[in-house]
Amino acid sequence: MQIALLGGTGDIGEGLAMRWGLDTTHELVIGSRDQEKARQRATEYRERVSEYAGEPNITGTSNVDAVDGADVVVLSIPPEYVSETVETVASSLSENTVVVSPAVSMSRDSDGFHYERPTNEGSITAIVDKSTPDGVPTVGAFHNISADRLTNLDADLDVDTVVVSDDEQAKSTVANLIHDIEGLRAIDGGSLANAPEVEGITPLLINIAMNNSEMHHLGVRFQ
Amino acid sequence: MQIALLGGTGDIGEGLAMRWGLDTTHELVIGSRDQEKARQRATEYRERVSEYAGEPNITGTSNVDAVDGADVVVLSIPPEYVSETVETVASSLSENTVVVSPAVSMSRDSDGFHYERPTNEGSITAIVDKSTPDGVPTVGAFHNISADRLTNLDADLDVDTVVVSDDEQAKSTVANLIHDIEGLRAIDGGSLANAPEVEGITPLLINIAMNNSEMHHLGVRFQ
Repeated sequence: MQIALLGGTGDIGEGLAMRWGLDTTHELVIGSRDQEKARQRATEYRERVSEYAGEPNITGTSNVDAVDGADVVVLSIPPEYVSETVETVASSLSENTVVVSPAVSMSRDSDGFHYERPTNEGSITAIVDKSTPDGVPTVGAFHNISADRLTNLDADLDVDTVVVSDDEQAKSTVANLIHDIEGLRAIDGGSLANAPEVEGITPLLINIAMNNSEMHHLGVRFQ
Repeated sequence: MQIALLGGTGDIGEGLAMRWGLDTTHELVIGSRDQEKARQRATEYRERVSEYAGEPNITGTSNVDAVDGADVVVLSIPPEYVSETVETVASSLSENTVVVSPAVSMSRDSDGFHYERPTNEGSITAIVDKSTPDGVPTVGAFHNISADRLTNLDADLDVDTVVVSDDEQAKSTVANLIHDIEGLRAIDGGSLANAPEVEGITPLLINIAMNNSEMHHLGVRFQ
C-alpha cells in the first residue's frame, strides 16, 4: 500500500513513518512544502529504521507529488493548516484515496491544555472532511498517540487509537494499517460525528503528563 | 471516613457503595429524596456485599441527613439536578466537606452519544463548584467509570479515574478513597478547569461499546 505522510518531516508523521517502516513493507512517501527537506528526512528515517530491521521503503518529495498514486494520505499538519494543505493536493485525491486526520486544536493557559472544539464543523476531522472533494473518504485516527513514543523504536506502544469515519471501507483500511503496527490497536469509534470526544483526549493526556511526575508520552487504552 | 452518596440508590452511587463496602470500613450513607427507598437499598447493598466479605457499614437516609457529618459527599445525580441538590444540602456543607462530582452532560442522536459541554461554566464539575457555598472544595472524579462494572463485584476494575480540583488537599483525600478500591487508580488531571476533557470521555466510552461487539462496561487506562 502507498501511504503519503504530508507534513511528514516531524511529529506524528515522523512517528508513523518509523513504525510502518519497521513493521511493514508499505511504500511510505514523506511529503513537505520543502521537497529537499522531505528527501533529507526520508533518508534519515531509513537509516534509523535500518538499525532495527531491513531497509524500509521511505522516500521524500513535495506534498503534491507525495499524494500522486497514494492509497492513504495522512495529514500530519498543525490544525490551522489542514484546509489549505488539502486544497493544494485536492486534484490528486479520488474516491480511492483515504484521507486520515490526526490533528487536534488546543489552547494553553496556566491550568494546562484545553480542547478547542471548532464551533461550526465540530472537529478538525470534520473540517478535513469538508475540505476534501466530494466522494473522497475521511478517517479520523492517531489523535491520541504520542509522536515521541512512536518515534522511539525502543518504546513499547501498547495503546489504542480510536478510528472514526462515515465510510466503513475506508475505516477498515485504516484499522488494518493500525494493526500492522506492533502494539497499536484500532478501536471503532463510529461515525465522523463522534470525532470531538476523541480529539478532546489529546489535551487531557498532556495535562496528565504535566501533573504526574512518572507519566510521559502517554497513550490511552480502553478496557 | 464518613461518605455520603447522594442519589446513591442507583448508578455510580450504588457501584461506589458496593466497592467501598467491599474494600473498606468507611461509613457509607446512601442519600435519596425518598428516605425509605434509601434504607431499602442500603439493606440490599449490605446483603450483596456480605456475600463477598464481612458486613459493610452502609445505611440509608434522606439526602439532607446523609450530608450531616459527612467528610465526603458524592453527587450521584443526573447533571440537570446537581445544582438543585447541592442547594438543598448547602447548609450542612463546610470547608471540611469535600464535594465530589461524577456527572456528565450528554446528548444522543443516530451517530451515538455526544458530550454537551455547559456553555458558561465549561463542565458539570464547575457547575457543582459554583453551586457550593464559598470555601467548600469540589473535586471531579469517577466520570469515566462504568456503574455496571463497579456494581458487579465479580468484575475486575483495572481502570483509571482522573481527579481534578483547585484544592490539592481535597484532591488528595479523594485520590486516597479511589486507591482504597482494588483495581482503581487515581490520576491527577490538574485543576478544575481541566474537567471538560475528562467528562468528554464518557460518551466516547459508550460509542466504543456500541461499535465494538466484544467491548462492554468500558473504562479507560492511561499508559
